[in-house]
Amino acid sequence: MLKEAVYHRPKNNFAYAYDTKTLHLRLRSKKNDLTEVNLIHGDPYSWAEDGVVSDTVPMSKLTSDELFDYWFIAISPQNNRFVYMFELHDGEEVAIYGEKGFTSSLDGNRFFRFPYLNAIDVFDAPAWAKSTVWYQIFPERFANGNPDRKTNVNGQWGDVPKSDSFFGGDLEGITQNLDYLVELGITGIYLNPIFESPTNHKYDTTDYLRIDPQFGDEETLRTLVKESHARGIRVMLDAVFNHSGYGFAPFQDVLKHGAKSRYADWFHISSFGENGEPHTYETFAFVPDMPKFKTSNPEVKEYLLKVAKYWIEKCDIDGWRLDIANEIDHKFWRQFRNEVRGLKDDLYIIAEVWNDAMPWLQGDQFDSVMNYPFTEAVIDFVAKRKIGAEKFANELVSHLQLYPDNVNEVMFNLLGSHDTARVLTESQDDKSRLKLAFLLLLTYPGSPSIYYGDEVGLTGDGDDFAYYRRCMEWDPEKQDQDLLSFVKRLIRIRKTNSALTDNARFSIIEANNDSGLLVFSRGEGQQKIVVALNNGTASVNVALPGDLAKQRIVDLWSEQQKVLEKEALSFALEPMQFVIYSVE
Amino acid sequence: MLKEAVYHRPKNNFAYAYDTKTLHLRLRSKKNDLTEVNLIHGDPYSWAEDGVVSDTVPMSKLTSDELFDYWFIAISPQNNRFVYMFELHDGEEVAIYGEKGFTSSLDGNRFFRFPYLNAIDVFDAPAWAKSTVWYQIFPERFANGNPDRKTNVNGQWGDVPKSDSFFGGDLEGITQNLDYLVELGITGIYLNPIFESPTNHKYDTTDYLRIDPQFGDEETLRTLVKESHARGIRVMLDAVFNHSGYGFAPFQDVLKHGAKSRYADWFHISSFGENGEPHTYETFAFVPDMPKFKTSNPEVKEYLLKVAKYWIEKCDIDGWRLDIANEIDHKFWRQFRNEVRGLKDDLYIIAEVWNDAMPWLQGDQFDSVMNYPFTEAVIDFVAKRKIGAEKFANELVSHLQLYPDNVNEVMFNLLGSHDTARVLTESQDDKSRLKLAFLLLLTYPGSPSIYYGDEVGLTGDGDDFAYYRRCMEWDPEKQDQDLLSFVKRLIRIRKTNSALTDNARFSIIEANNDSGLLVFSRGEGQQKIVVALNNGTASVNVALPGDLAKQRIVDLWSEQQKVLEKEALSFALEPMQFVIYSVE
Repeated sequence: MLKEAVYHRPKNNFAYAYDTKTLHLRLRSKKNDLTEVNLIHGDPYSWAEDGVVSDTVPMSKLTSDELFDYWFIAISPQNNRFVYMFELHDGEEVAIYGEKGFTSSLDGNRFFRFPYLNAIDVFDAPAWAKSTVWYQIFPERFANGNPDRKTNVNGQWGDVPKSDSFFGGDLEGITQNLDYLVELGITGIYLNPIFESPTNHKYDTTDYLRIDPQFGDEETLRTLVKESHARGIRVMLDAVFNHSGYGFAPFQDVLKHGAKSRYADWFHISSFGENGEPHTYETFAFVPDMPKFKTSNPEVKEYLLKVAKYWIEKCDIDGWRLDIANEIDHKFWRQFRNEVRGLKDDLYIIAEVWNDAMPWLQGDQFDSVMNYPFTEAVIDFVAKRKIGAEKFANELVSHLQLYPDNVNEVMFNLLGSHDTARVLTESQDDKSRLKLAFLLLLTYPGSPSIYYGDEVGLTGDGDDFAYYRRCMEWDPEKQDQDLLSFVKRLIRIRKTNSALTDNARFSIIEANNDSGLLVFSRGEGQQKIVVALNNGTASVNVALPGDLAKQRIVDLWSEQQKVLEKEALSFALEPMQFVIYSVE
Repeated sequence: MLKEAVYHRPKNNFAYAYDTKTLHLRLRSKKNDLTEVNLIHGDPYSWAEDGVVSDTVPMSKLTSDELFDYWFIAISPQNNRFVYMFELHDGEEVAIYGEKGFTSSLDGNRFFRFPYLNAIDVFDAPAWAKSTVWYQIFPERFANGNPDRKTNVNGQWGDVPKSDSFFGGDLEGITQNLDYLVELGITGIYLNPIFESPTNHKYDTTDYLRIDPQFGDEETLRTLVKESHARGIRVMLDAVFNHSGYGFAPFQDVLKHGAKSRYADWFHISSFGENGEPHTYETFAFVPDMPKFKTSNPEVKEYLLKVAKYWIEKCDIDGWRLDIANEIDHKFWRQFRNEVRGLKDDLYIIAEVWNDAMPWLQGDQFDSVMNYPFTEAVIDFVAKRKIGAEKFANELVSHLQLYPDNVNEVMFNLLGSHDTARVLTESQDDKSRLKLAFLLLLTYPGSPSIYYGDEVGLTGDGDDFAYYRRCMEWDPEKQDQDLLSFVKRLIRIRKTNSALTDNARFSIIEANNDSGLLVFSRGEGQQKIVVALNNGTASVNVALPGDLAKQRIVDLWSEQQKVLEKEALSFALEPMQFVIYSVE
């Protein structure tokens, strides 16, 4: 038994409240080392004659990655209180694993403890998030709905953008195209920043309480939200609270009055300029135009929270996406959650965190983060073909195991954004790769997001962000209609098969580096979805597990959703082809 | 290289802000597996030509337990931002360990990230805590300072207590004996509950805003605190917020008015009694006299926070010890910290958590917990002699590695409390064992606490808590004066040698199961303290590391604090004897 590989620690992804009645426990062990893991558990105050133990139940080996197996159990503590140890078997040895490590019996060890399942601490992302299909819009580039108002347009719609290009996209443009999104199957839109700013990306806000006049005004936003809601679409805005723009009035006041400014403590100023010398101050990255807010200053906090609440109150938005959220203090975010959730109890809060985000996803701060590790794995596997099916599967499993299931269920998954190269370009303009990427996005656990235009074949790459922010293609002749239908069909399948959205269960059935074959299943219980895809260059024979033959199998991808004979479990899959079966 | 044993994850004990300028990083690996670990690090936004890396620096193998080595580095990120990977060497193989696991180079991996060192998130226990020596008092049993007021005394001071005994201890009794504590060297007192309650332990409060009349009143407490402060002693009270007593007016109101009570939602009532049937409700453990508060109810929260602030405002107390803290919700404790710290910014907050308490010790909830795992290890090693020196050393190291250093520095260490058998009784009345226990307590990192009377030889064991709560012995003839002097001398040594209190560095030099020899050092830098003790049954030869010979060594235990020759590094240590050397 490789004891050094065994890991468990309560109150994170290894032991958490899944809901107000259920705990999830996980244990990690070396891959293929243990043959059996049992959970010995009880109420800490049940002093039975033989100690606190009330029961021993087997855990399931749920999944594996490159190095580890992950064992799992869902269990309801009778009095909300729970103590437990693990009994590990490897075929030869039996060991008890508790808080003091390994012992041969319960004696001399200490129980792990989930002291009390308090409902108020349970991670509570909005129920609607897991069945939402998002569409991310970079407003300056989606559609120009009100050309009359524009004063800054300096290019022709569709031109290759430069970093200072303005093409005239606005909020009316979005409202006017909502039916396009309905048709596509979208149920949520996420807008990059829309508040007053001199740039096209607007990540350098000058006025947080004003819609950029090129985009519209408060009424325009209210209309957009109303029209969206009328179509079953939720609206999420981008909160850039890590830093302001250079032209933000309080920062300008600091530049002008130095230490005497009443906003002097709103930023991290390390020295004030004298005799015309520049101030030195902390910024986002090394960008002087983006001075970092001192969010620990109660005045700053109050101001930014006022902003966050203002747009909920005035325009009824449904979510906030938080820019550079991991560089702002945790205390700020806890108060942010309390206050915005106090106003709207099913507001979705997602954050830009590219790394392991567990410290922010414990129910007290965010509901979700932009899942760039997923993006990267998909791009490496199907677009760039840098990694094989097995490594891809391992990366996904490792990443899912980093978080509780209820977090994974609402993870904001994406193939690309305003900050990455377009997925079609990463695919070297090969649409068959892009299609597999969409297949993965739309069958994966989480809340998937489509970056505007990816569904009609927009491209873009290069060192300059401008290239990923091209104008939406509205000419049906120039839109890739085959791709668009493909994405629509996938979205429809996702929305009509709850096994794809109900929970985070994702099981690898086969992952073959040589052939490029990946087979996985989603869901548990009544319905399961099985997906097989061939990311290789030759036809591959697929043999699905025999136990599926006992059930009803429906080919969800075929237009007829036809019921298959059990012989259909063995079939040839051509390169870049796939199947989606529902097993009921 | 045993990759399965390697562990690191940011934002807990493995990567944390030690202060507003310094990060601590730790890496765990299989014991004796790696020969070298280097930290490759940089600023996430320094896009140098060769990537983000700005430097590679070696980590130190700081300590080891039964299965693992722990590597360590303290480092200051230049712009408060930090990304890093680890370069692992085992003599043959070199591997890079990052957020995606193991790779042969930085490519294809992902940096771990400590996104931003926000000062406001840094764990900030009060600076005074680590140099405090506590004295825990069970007020009913310490001293009767005002016999005239007593109406409930039902036994003679010093009698063996029964569970319903009252002997007349009170707050005046404590005030009158402060000079005894000063003489002993005490700088903090922790009082078990003192608010109105029918029992001697008072863990079933009937009025949180009233001192129990048998103990005194608000003025009596104010005097106690004032007189303590005048002597350099801080005062901590016990907050019993998990449950109330049966006689607590709001609970009585619920019993009387059922669902119609305005307090109906203050408790977890699963059904209200009809026609004289009893209510069913959640309790502490299975004790019907202790109904559990619904701390998620804003009214309840407001009430309890009012209580917490009331005693700070009215009587200037310095700390709150939180009973059954781990069964109350995290949101409650975060608000608790905000509010009490808002009133008194160096208030010490410690909690009753017997298990791994990392989820509460991240700067947002508690400063410290009662360190019962330390208690248990010391009892097992020197009192019960159940475990050898090596296992004892491993248990201490494992436990220290569970928490950040700044947490360990203020950990509330104890040999026993109102909830455990007396350490002398656990030692089978063998004073030489008790002395080694005190030696360990007072040379260990943290904030040590002495349970009243342990220093003069009080005993107590048995199934009934009453036995650990005997009356303080005030007759000098019956006090163990040798033990008392021993404890005083140890406290004096602790208070005059900052290496024992400045930081949490604790290094095992030797731990021998056969001989019972344990040698460890404390501190780093200018001064180190070396402690050697023989917990065995035969004389043992000690040979301290040769590099100490180059330095000045002072025998701190000898009354003369004499300077030793380097020959003194080798010596015989008789059973149950010890040395405390200062190496400068």
